[in-house]
Amino acid sequence: MFNSIKKIFAQRTDYKKLKKEISPVPSKFIKDLIDSINLGLIDRTDSFLADLSSGEIANIIEQLDSSDRKKLIFFLGSKIGPEIILELDKDIRNEIISIVGEHTFLDIVSKLNTDDLIVILEDLDVDKRGQYLKLLPKKSQRELVKKGLKFPEDTAGRIMATDIVSVSASWTIGKTLKYLRQKKEILPENIYEVYILDSKRRPIGTLNLNTIVRSTSATVVKNIMNTQFKTIPIDTDQEEIALGFKQSNLIAAPVVDKFGKIVGQITSEDVIDIIEEETEEDLLRLSGVQSDDTYSAVLKTIQSRFGWLLINLFTAIAASFVIGIFESSLRQLVALAILMPIVASMGGNAGTQTLTVAVRALALREVTRANALRVIGKEFAVGTINGIIFAVIIGSVAAYWFQMPLLGIIIGAAMIINLMVACLSGILIPLILDKTGIDPAIASTVVLTTITDIFGFFVFLGLGSIYLL
Amino acid sequence: MFNSIKKIFAQRTDYKKLKKEISPVPSKFIKDLIDSINLGLIDRTDSFLADLSSGEIANIIEQLDSSDRKKLIFFLGSKIGPEIILELDKDIRNEIISIVGEHTFLDIVSKLNTDDLIVILEDLDVDKRGQYLKLLPKKSQRELVKKGLKFPEDTAGRIMATDIVSVSASWTIGKTLKYLRQKKEILPENIYEVYILDSKRRPIGTLNLNTIVRSTSATVVKNIMNTQFKTIPIDTDQEEIALGFKQSNLIAAPVVDKFGKIVGQITSEDVIDIIEEETEEDLLRLSGVQSDDTYSAVLKTIQSRFGWLLINLFTAIAASFVIGIFESSLRQLVALAILMPIVASMGGNAGTQTLTVAVRALALREVTRANALRVIGKEFAVGTINGIIFAVIIGSVAAYWFQMPLLGIIIGAAMIINLMVACLSGILIPLILDKTGIDPAIASTVVLTTITDIFGFFVFLGLGSIYLL
Repeated sequence: MFNSIKKIFAQRTDYKKLKKEISPVPSKFIKDLIDSINLGLIDRTDSFLADLSSGEIANIIEQLDSSDRKKLIFFLGSKIGPEIILELDKDIRNEIISIVGEHTFLDIVSKLNTDDLIVILEDLDVDKRGQYLKLLPKKSQRELVKKGLKFPEDTAGRIMATDIVSVSASWTIGKTLKYLRQKKEILPENIYEVYILDSKRRPIGTLNLNTIVRSTSATVVKNIMNTQFKTIPIDTDQEEIALGFKQSNLIAAPVVDKFGKIVGQITSEDVIDIIEEETEEDLLRLSGVQSDDTYSAVLKTIQSRFGWLLINLFTAIAASFVIGIFESSLRQLVALAILMPIVASMGGNAGTQTLTVAVRALALREVTRANALRVIGKEFAVGTINGIIFAVIIGSVAAYWFQMPLLGIIIGAAMIINLMVACLSGILIPLILDKTGIDPAIASTVVLTTITDIFGFFVFLGLGSIYLL
Repeated sequence: MFNSIKKIFAQRTDYKKLKKEISPVPSKFIKDLIDSINLGLIDRTDSFLADLSSGEIANIIEQLDSSDRKKLIFFLGSKIGPEIILELDKDIRNEIISIVGEHTFLDIVSKLNTDDLIVILEDLDVDKRGQYLKLLPKKSQRELVKKGLKFPEDTAGRIMATDIVSVSASWTIGKTLKYLRQKKEILPENIYEVYILDSKRRPIGTLNLNTIVRSTSATVVKNIMNTQFKTIPIDTDQEEIALGFKQSNLIAAPVVDKFGKIVGQITSEDVIDIIEEETEEDLLRLSGVQSDDTYSAVLKTIQSRFGWLLINLFTAIAASFVIGIFESSLRQLVALAILMPIVASMGGNAGTQTLTVAVRALALREVTRANALRVIGKEFAVGTINGIIFAVIIGSVAAYWFQMPLLGIIIGAAMIINLMVACLSGILIPLILDKTGIDPAIASTVVLTTITDIFGFFVFLGLGSIYLL
């Protein structure tokens, strides 16, 4: 035991140097941290934790197994920072609630800004939300959170921070700086833009901190404020907000209600979260996973994946029914059974390629009504040409393998047709879903593979039955 | 024609209001813009374009078909902003080079900051880079770009901006503000952090603009600077940079060389680009697409997708060989041929679900050595339980369909085994690839589906041959 302690002490200097650098926390560090908790070295553990940011501690909590996790959370106790809880995965947050209790949990997170508090509450079960809301100590905060939760999820109203800084157009930069210094205790921690409002609190200009620090004290705000700013209507979807930020290189923008009155702001920090959430959602949905379930328990994980597999089972059975139509052909020529998965599999893969590119392009607004026809034409060409190339290869292989030239021609023809259908479906399915308001990522893959499977089997077995038997 | 003109004039006011809001450019706007170019309305076109940010113009250029695109680029001529070129897809950039010529192109982009210029040059063919570099008008810039391009792609050295702002620790805030005002012409446009360096130019502290504007003039920098900042070693991979920014909630961080000397900085704007690039890369690679080919010509698109399809063809043929082993069984019992795709397909899907979650979790460092075993155990449990549920369903269907209870039991058993194998492979393949330094996104899917196909066919047909014939 003494050696363990000595080792931990010796290594701390190294870790400290390491932690100066941007890099994930090394697993040895995590091990030593847990060792020092187990050995009861309170000061040591404290100083280990002092080197870490909230995000890093959250990441460590997530990686631990549940018994070590419990130890670390007990160690942190009510000292667990609200920022740590904010960074945690929602499944782990629920674990923390069950350890520290609802009262302590709400008391800790009530120190967060309203928008962050909303992020935590919206992840909880809907039926528990009301109960948790009541536990919030401050009434004013409770009201703000309630209001925020009323806006639809993933819209500006939910995401925005409500505390903004505004100055008068007639002020000088000197007065503005003086104001910021005097009010520093109550102003939000990170200000990117200061807003200039008219008498109805509608934004008429923005002033970036960069402009403020470069202007002389006597400069009047009106003369240097940016009037070409963009506003975010409160019901704007987060995907559009992220696109707008990128296209206009924004760092912050005001959120306005339907009268044009400022009600909050969204910053590039929010946009980083949105972009991650949206692309991750696309990725998971395309693979038939409902939500990131890395930290979910087994049962919840099964739930998140079951629906998709069930649908896939039905479409696979449907494909088998199609094969069943050709039962007697299969009996007469077993080569058809042996080769049929190739045509279906190639169709599924070529279609998925097109589909993925199309879903991304739709999300990024790279494909719109203006160029949809051209993109469809291109995918058709890609499918046809790839189809011809692979038809030659598989045709030769099949002809040689079964010593039946005609079988080679038939599998080649089926390959061309199925790859054309696959690439066309890969672009048309997401376009149609998008048009009807369904997220193309969520349903495209299953529709596509159903088509390529059923069509692949049908064309190949159909042609085989006609020309080979 | 007169009506068209009138219509365009009338609608402009509406568009102007619309463009105040964050939202994608409406396709009607794009149509009217092209109409006004075609009608030769120069002032009108100019004022249409004046409402748009560089990113929006870039997005419009991308959406146009190549003849309209050419018209718009001709209209913009040498006035095409360097920021517009920066925002464009690389395939479109090459189109612009072929329209305006290499000299004009390099002349325009030379107005960009070095780091942005590097982004453009690194996308060009390696053999053309040297030639283009020589065309850069300023020698100092040429040297900086050359130096930047020497750093490995996707590392801090390539991404960083080299112009940073530093002040002395002994200065007051008043002096700092005065300095920023005096040097405003030569300082970078967006300053987030001001760096405090020692005599060897090693960062010893950072000062956020937020802190500057809140502090009184007499405050000494040394007393308020943040000494708990993180540094980015110049060879850090961009994925780690993005993770570090998120975990420590950074807005900017200094890049240092191996002696700890500051050489540049990376900001949260860069991180937005990194996150998008990395998640998009994962998404495309998991579907077997080499790069985003939305704007690529047909031939280039075929290239970007061919490799994967070819590998898939070989693995599909391999699976067919496995089926071929059971030729006589298939001949005797055609039900085996009809049902066999179901087992393979379910395995592929269940495996892909696990795989996608695992690839994301690895990228986000949610799965590390510390919890790998636990995650493997969980996936095994998920696969087994899902396998049992689907075994019951498909077993009943098959037994009823072919009126053979034993066939139901056999397909059920094959389903359980294949789903167990699929979920285990879905987590083990990316873990092993990651360990060996291969990007798990690029090769996982093909290895996985090969395993689930071959294994699925083998187990089902093998069990069928043993127990049914």
